[in-house]
Amino acid sequence: MFIAKNLAVNEKNHLTVGGIDTVELAEKYGTPLYVMDENLIRENCRLYKSSIDKNYDGNGLALYASKAFSSLSIYKIVNEEGLGIDVVSGGELYTALKADFPAQKIYFHGNNKTKDELKMALDNGVGRIVVDNLTELSVLNELALSENKTVDILFRIKPGIDAHTHSFVMTGQIDSKFGVALETGEAFDIIKTASEMQGINVVGIHCHIGSQIFDLKPFEQAADVMMTFMAKIKSELKIELSELNLGGGFGISYTESDTPIEYDKYMEAVSKIVKASALKYDLKLPKIIMEPGRSIVASAGTTLYTIGSVKEIPNIRKYVAVDGGMADNPRYILYQSEYDFQIANKAGDAKTETVTIAGRCCESGDLLGENVKLQNAGAGDILAVLATGAYNYSMASHYNRLPNPAVIMIKDGKERVVIKRESYEDLIKNDLF
Amino acid sequence: MFIAKNLAVNEKNHLTVGGIDTVELAEKYGTPLYVMDENLIRENCRLYKSSIDKNYDGNGLALYASKAFSSLSIYKIVNEEGLGIDVVSGGELYTALKADFPAQKIYFHGNNKTKDELKMALDNGVGRIVVDNLTELSVLNELALSENKTVDILFRIKPGIDAHTHSFVMTGQIDSKFGVALETGEAFDIIKTASEMQGINVVGIHCHIGSQIFDLKPFEQAADVMMTFMAKIKSELKIELSELNLGGGFGISYTESDTPIEYDKYMEAVSKIVKASALKYDLKLPKIIMEPGRSIVASAGTTLYTIGSVKEIPNIRKYVAVDGGMADNPRYILYQSEYDFQIANKAGDAKTETVTIAGRCCESGDLLGENVKLQNAGAGDILAVLATGAYNYSMASHYNRLPNPAVIMIKDGKERVVIKRESYEDLIKNDLF
Repeated sequence: MFIAKNLAVNEKNHLTVGGIDTVELAEKYGTPLYVMDENLIRENCRLYKSSIDKNYDGNGLALYASKAFSSLSIYKIVNEEGLGIDVVSGGELYTALKADFPAQKIYFHGNNKTKDELKMALDNGVGRIVVDNLTELSVLNELALSENKTVDILFRIKPGIDAHTHSFVMTGQIDSKFGVALETGEAFDIIKTASEMQGINVVGIHCHIGSQIFDLKPFEQAADVMMTFMAKIKSELKIELSELNLGGGFGISYTESDTPIEYDKYMEAVSKIVKASALKYDLKLPKIIMEPGRSIVASAGTTLYTIGSVKEIPNIRKYVAVDGGMADNPRYILYQSEYDFQIANKAGDAKTETVTIAGRCCESGDLLGENVKLQNAGAGDILAVLATGAYNYSMASHYNRLPNPAVIMIKDGKERVVIKRESYEDLIKNDLF
Repeated sequence: MFIAKNLAVNEKNHLTVGGIDTVELAEKYGTPLYVMDENLIRENCRLYKSSIDKNYDGNGLALYASKAFSSLSIYKIVNEEGLGIDVVSGGELYTALKADFPAQKIYFHGNNKTKDELKMALDNGVGRIVVDNLTELSVLNELALSENKTVDILFRIKPGIDAHTHSFVMTGQIDSKFGVALETGEAFDIIKTASEMQGINVVGIHCHIGSQIFDLKPFEQAADVMMTFMAKIKSELKIELSELNLGGGFGISYTESDTPIEYDKYMEAVSKIVKASALKYDLKLPKIIMEPGRSIVASAGTTLYTIGSVKEIPNIRKYVAVDGGMADNPRYILYQSEYDFQIANKAGDAKTETVTIAGRCCESGDLLGENVKLQNAGAGDILAVLATGAYNYSMASHYNRLPNPAVIMIKDGKERVVIKRESYEDLIKNDLF
């Protein structure tokens, strides 16, 4: 019935997450409220781990792409499940280190890391820096030399794969702010340059072909292109790279019309390509790294709101207004992302209405969905928005000076607060006159 | 030469804001950095005040729409200039009260205020609640009765004016999450209902027809429609409303192609309509309220970034990457808003390049401008983005776990920090395991 299997309806006709009554959560902790299911997060982590074991003899590592949701708690959970992480800023790195995440299993990404951040990464023994460009490479080499270190790096490559057309395109994909292009020779040149630097040890290459991808083909093509490039690096530069990082982008179900790839199918397909390519080019099998973010946490999250006014505009539209909106979930105003909506206190009822969900921000575009199906809604009802575990809390703003909601984690039928609700006092903590 | 008159180039070829060298500010306080000019903010406040004095005998009040930029400091400044404010949440109200803003000059807006917020407003003696809908009206009346108070309110009306077509449209504008519609009779009915409530005193009506409007006509039309409605209320309900709140929406110059209305012209035109209408319908001249937000603070703000990598993609595009982006300024990714860009340390040079400004977030859409004119840029240069005083800090997120930048206020050739830069520690202040 629901898009995620941890959701159900109890005897009170209330939506439950991991067995916990969401209406009671809303009453106890207030709304808006982010609710996450730790069991489902752990299960998602294990799917990645087991598919690497099964299809590639465990010679790989799934990194949780923590920009999807970054907090002390999530780093602890992911670490306990044996995954690595990718971080994209000093702030994410700081948080991970505060959660005692092993630095060696941290990959540091970003198209424009600052010198301070690179130094922070070096000083803390971060496992890999995924270098984006020549400027960064030079800064990093200088830092490494000044600290008598050799830094293990990967390069972010633009492989020229368009995840949506499945073709190796001559333009388009090289028009990205990220990484160095394969087809122009830029990627080859930067590896050659790096190979001559004393502070740098090129361990592998990385690519990321897009987000919310529902098709295997572009992943297979990317693996093929990247392996072919590794062969070229071996034959022309005599460098055998040991890590192939194929990034993330695995689609998830936001609504019933989404049909994600099973993780296992992905790993099976990609492993085949990599093994065949290694054989063909006489390469050692590289360690395969993947970077799931959304697919680890999105479906494990549910946002709860209290409905305020319901506004029927005759012959036009019915607006259902909630006590949150673009400040806690900017994905609709940014990308017109679709969600599944449920009235948590009427979760077993049929969805008989077509409504528009309005946020509370003073901005016309502050909507969470337009013309969506919903149970009959009234003031005081609790609205649940499903699959909000990724890119909601992490993208939250204080627009209209709304405090960030709390985050509740559910595990084995018990809930706990993992991020406290911001107070009004928090909002002015750094304010002076 | 620049879009705001407080900007200039000094003898070092550096951009100055209110006489202060922005390159020195970037060095001293780090980047990204929001810089605001208090003198210009005060001047903008006075333009509104003096135009009300000149054109309407001072029988009006400009409210600073503080969702544009809310902080302790701005409320103090605006209060000293004699303006009122509008707030749209408990958070804004809390901040204003902490800045000792006189509650009687606060107007509380919002399409979905919570009961707690309404109570907070009542308990603190907020001057006006701008009621959005029937649900809110009932809640407010009950609260007022339980506290033996009478609350002064305005109603938010959808006047049916489309700011961009200048016509009174039968649909479209009534399809809004805000307020009650004139043309369907909803607005009339709610005032009738309110007039019979013991806890409610209907003082006036409010409308807001859009944002970034560069034309007088829709404002004139709105004034006319609202006055005609006030006449109907008087004749049919025997209620003479004393306040006409015409909202905001006054456009500002983001780039040289924008041509804003002079505030004085606006007030002159609107005053004429209101006076003529009052004469025609035998109404007392209402107090005119206006709600400038963007036009008070936008041009007074400048954001400073440090340029990291510059990436030339042959025959396609040149990316200039900065150490901020959508996390501190989401207006480009949200609305493709245009800005004027300057290399602060080469501000007097000609703009010889066409570049795309890339943010540092791990998201392809994280850009601040595409194909914009700029001086020749290199790593380490300081990029200034002009007219960022509105809807930048107030919309900032922690996406990619980036701390919010500091805000510097410049006054009479001296600078001070009015919002401290967030620390990494701040990011995890509410985190638990």
